[in-house]
Amino acid sequence: MAGKSGIAPTFGLMQDWPLTLDKFIEHARRWHGTREIVSRFADGHIERRNYIQIYDDAMRISGALLANAIGIGDRVATLAMNSADHLSAWYGIAGIGALYHTLNPRLFQDQLVYIVNHADDRLIFADGMFAPILAALLPRCPRVRRVVFLTPPAQPVELPVPAVALKDFVAGHDGIYPWGQFDERSAAGLCYTSGTTGLPKGVMYSHRSNFLHAMTSIQPDVLNLSSADTILAIVPMFHANAWGLAFATPGIGANLILPGPCLDGASVHELIINENVTFAAGVPTVWLALLDYLDAQGLGLGSLKRVIIGGSAMPERMLHRFRERGVEVTHAWGMTEMSPMGTVCTLTPRIAALPFEEQVPYRMKQGRPLFTVDMRLVDEDGKVLPHDAKTVGHLQVRGPGVTRAYLGEDRDVLDAEGWFDTGDIATICPLGFMQITDRAKDVIKSGGEWISSLEIESAVSMHEKVALAAAIGVPHPKWAERPVLFLTLKPGEQGEPEEFITFLTGRIAKWWLPDAVYFLDEIPVGATGKVDKKKLRTMVTETEEGGLSAVNSE
Amino acid sequence: MAGKSGIAPTFGLMQDWPLTLDKFIEHARRWHGTREIVSRFADGHIERRNYIQIYDDAMRISGALLANAIGIGDRVATLAMNSADHLSAWYGIAGIGALYHTLNPRLFQDQLVYIVNHADDRLIFADGMFAPILAALLPRCPRVRRVVFLTPPAQPVELPVPAVALKDFVAGHDGIYPWGQFDERSAAGLCYTSGTTGLPKGVMYSHRSNFLHAMTSIQPDVLNLSSADTILAIVPMFHANAWGLAFATPGIGANLILPGPCLDGASVHELIINENVTFAAGVPTVWLALLDYLDAQGLGLGSLKRVIIGGSAMPERMLHRFRERGVEVTHAWGMTEMSPMGTVCTLTPRIAALPFEEQVPYRMKQGRPLFTVDMRLVDEDGKVLPHDAKTVGHLQVRGPGVTRAYLGEDRDVLDAEGWFDTGDIATICPLGFMQITDRAKDVIKSGGEWISSLEIESAVSMHEKVALAAAIGVPHPKWAERPVLFLTLKPGEQGEPEEFITFLTGRIAKWWLPDAVYFLDEIPVGATGKVDKKKLRTMVTETEEGGLSAVNSE
Repeated sequence: MAGKSGIAPTFGLMQDWPLTLDKFIEHARRWHGTREIVSRFADGHIERRNYIQIYDDAMRISGALLANAIGIGDRVATLAMNSADHLSAWYGIAGIGALYHTLNPRLFQDQLVYIVNHADDRLIFADGMFAPILAALLPRCPRVRRVVFLTPPAQPVELPVPAVALKDFVAGHDGIYPWGQFDERSAAGLCYTSGTTGLPKGVMYSHRSNFLHAMTSIQPDVLNLSSADTILAIVPMFHANAWGLAFATPGIGANLILPGPCLDGASVHELIINENVTFAAGVPTVWLALLDYLDAQGLGLGSLKRVIIGGSAMPERMLHRFRERGVEVTHAWGMTEMSPMGTVCTLTPRIAALPFEEQVPYRMKQGRPLFTVDMRLVDEDGKVLPHDAKTVGHLQVRGPGVTRAYLGEDRDVLDAEGWFDTGDIATICPLGFMQITDRAKDVIKSGGEWISSLEIESAVSMHEKVALAAAIGVPHPKWAERPVLFLTLKPGEQGEPEEFITFLTGRIAKWWLPDAVYFLDEIPVGATGKVDKKKLRTMVTETEEGGLSAVNSE
Repeated sequence: MAGKSGIAPTFGLMQDWPLTLDKFIEHARRWHGTREIVSRFADGHIERRNYIQIYDDAMRISGALLANAIGIGDRVATLAMNSADHLSAWYGIAGIGALYHTLNPRLFQDQLVYIVNHADDRLIFADGMFAPILAALLPRCPRVRRVVFLTPPAQPVELPVPAVALKDFVAGHDGIYPWGQFDERSAAGLCYTSGTTGLPKGVMYSHRSNFLHAMTSIQPDVLNLSSADTILAIVPMFHANAWGLAFATPGIGANLILPGPCLDGASVHELIINENVTFAAGVPTVWLALLDYLDAQGLGLGSLKRVIIGGSAMPERMLHRFRERGVEVTHAWGMTEMSPMGTVCTLTPRIAALPFEEQVPYRMKQGRPLFTVDMRLVDEDGKVLPHDAKTVGHLQVRGPGVTRAYLGEDRDVLDAEGWFDTGDIATICPLGFMQITDRAKDVIKSGGEWISSLEIESAVSMHEKVALAAAIGVPHPKWAERPVLFLTLKPGEQGEPEEFITFLTGRIAKWWLPDAVYFLDEIPVGATGKVDKKKLRTMVTETEEGGLSAVNSE
């Protein structure tokens, strides 16, 4: 807040206590000091720290940054997997009012170059495993002054700027540096969205927005996080703030387990069992790998009780596979522009009282809005649409965790009433459960009506041979667009287009049945693990030459 | 927030979404509209509303207030028990930037007169049962312009200002009135502390402080509130914001059960059973009445799972009596100046893993600080004291829910580092559990050491004959002070001082044993239900004449 200078006579008489992120780690240090932060590294070894150490390390990083002339508003990038050092770096950077800018190492080099330069990053904290990326990147990013390695590169690397190990970077900076002496609206973090269209766009979180989002995430109806939990954060810190876990977890004093780059089924299973994990958060692909591993090895999930799944829609079978192992799965939805959570599929008492099979249609929806998120559906003209589970519209959101503008763009992206258009197409049922039916850019418009690519994908994913499915619209002279379906089958499986059309018949509306089914060894995905439908559209136009199999094409 | 005019270039790019209280009821209306608010009235009848109706009623109240020239910063008093109309009044008042000022009907008339005039209350929403109080009060409060009755007075009453029923007050005000169009630091509520010493002091909550407190209270480690809960708010709304439940409950969309004035065991039990209450909040005296009733009638507690106890220290037997009925009791501590919660006794995983009997010493402490509350112990000179469970010191707190000044007083009550002295004396153990040992003004200083009156009271309360106990210090020529003990025995019980001294021997340090035990038919309590130790001290000086029994006096 602005401090006493801005106090009006009609204000309350409560303390001025700005919502800055240092409060989370300060609370953990003082009241949950011995709870553990466990990091896994590329070579499989484990390091254990507690919140007192995380605080001390973050303080040292702040000292070193200040000595390197980094201050309020400066951007410091991180190119790293989840680890205690990455966590300390966030707090050390944000504590002095600089911005942690998470780089997604899976982006294409051109995108990373654009992002680093656009953000004006001054310094990069990086895992050694990403040294080759840096070597390619930095000659094109002249304003980056220094690299700090959180973990050592496997081989010596030639970089155009000085590179130093973290312990050398912080050496001698053992003082107490002032944290949080700025307005809570100050920028704290930066994350670029990398859609498959257009240039990446920078979302700039404030201390306040991250703080409030984390406070909300802790609630029983959201992530339900308690000091008794041991939280496995599989979702990368470079993926939309790791869904706020880096703040919520010290805020409640839970143990935090950070898997580093080891996201294969065996590694994740081992961490869950050895660390007595109770709660885990990640995208569907990681869970798929874990569940397949458990099936193959005949293993269970120990003390794991709850899993939150977001990032992309959960296949229905995943719900059942976790349930068979005694784990409650909660579906969630959000986006980088929302800090990131928007809805969580917590059941209402009435739905929770139904038999499980009748709960499934609700559990497969993206869920109900968190308190601090408001949400509505509008049509193409901005008219508000009803919550009747049938009417499909553009999903808009509003709240303290929602972006109002992208970095470097002059204009607000909100409408006159402050609503942000998510780019998603959705329905909302009378009980308030929202269901994404498509991205606006992926929606298939056939004969004047919308076909949901997600519903086609979801339905065909129940076929036992299917590993991944993607439906897109292709131009059609009569219907404007018609759906076609791409499938990747499970290892060793073979199939004919007809059997999937037969499988879908009765599961979706007849006029939604794809006009063609194509098989790919691998469906192309972007850096955030989402299917690259733009590329798929290109592939369809290449069909004649590319020799992909097709049915039903007219 | 200050709006875009105050935006600095180093700020984040997230939405401006002020933390105003209207957001809670707006969220409930949109996303939990059909959840119920159930009110019980003096004659025992029940009324059911939902959040849509609460919102509509609050909106009408806003319209009527605006028509009565009430606006930003104006104070509107409520003199009422917990009910849906009282809740709507809070939201209707705060929505337009006026202040809901809760009056405690149990205060002495002189205190109420002082408070109403000091607060400059313009209008009073009152239950009809309090008409006699108003009739005595209002001739001495010339600036009050109008009374609105939420429930009708039993008999016609003569008041010096116009009085109107709520439905007539709001008639014709069916528009949509702008809510929350002001800075979130604006005052929202007012509650006076009424210690047994000095004049009452006004604590003025802001929208922001109430908002953040409610967000914290929802967390699993605090009140653990979910949309699946049915919450019985026994703690009166005039008792320190009803511990934030009026905001937290619509924020999560739980059912809210408001017992009105019917706080006897039979009424409370009936509500718990009929409404399937899962969570209840109240002070020890109400629970004592309920438990005695259950014992006498051989009844259980149905679906009740959790009870939070605050306001004064919980007797240990209460913990066991609830546990025998399958109800988890959580001890909490706070004060009017803290919005009000400061600590909640949620166990750490290590303590929770112990056998119940070994948990008891921890469960009897006041607990660990919520996130957003910081806390420390200092000695008389302000030196910070260790968390070793033994060192006794002055308890200080800091946070967004903590007051910085009292209404009408120029000076901040904080020290240079922003700490508020609670007036409590406490210890903190290495695991972070705080235990109140005394009010600073009640502490017994004997031979240069502090004796905890609370510990003496707690120990002797385990004696089966004891209904209520109070220990105070009396002047002593050699030791400066020595403890004496007042007891009220249960109905039909008789006792001699010696048996209680014998009972205490071995349970507390030998030099803490009271020099005298006095029996009273009723130990005097103040308006907030706390023992009036000031009065007890007067009674001891009257001992010689008053003929109270005494032992061990030298």
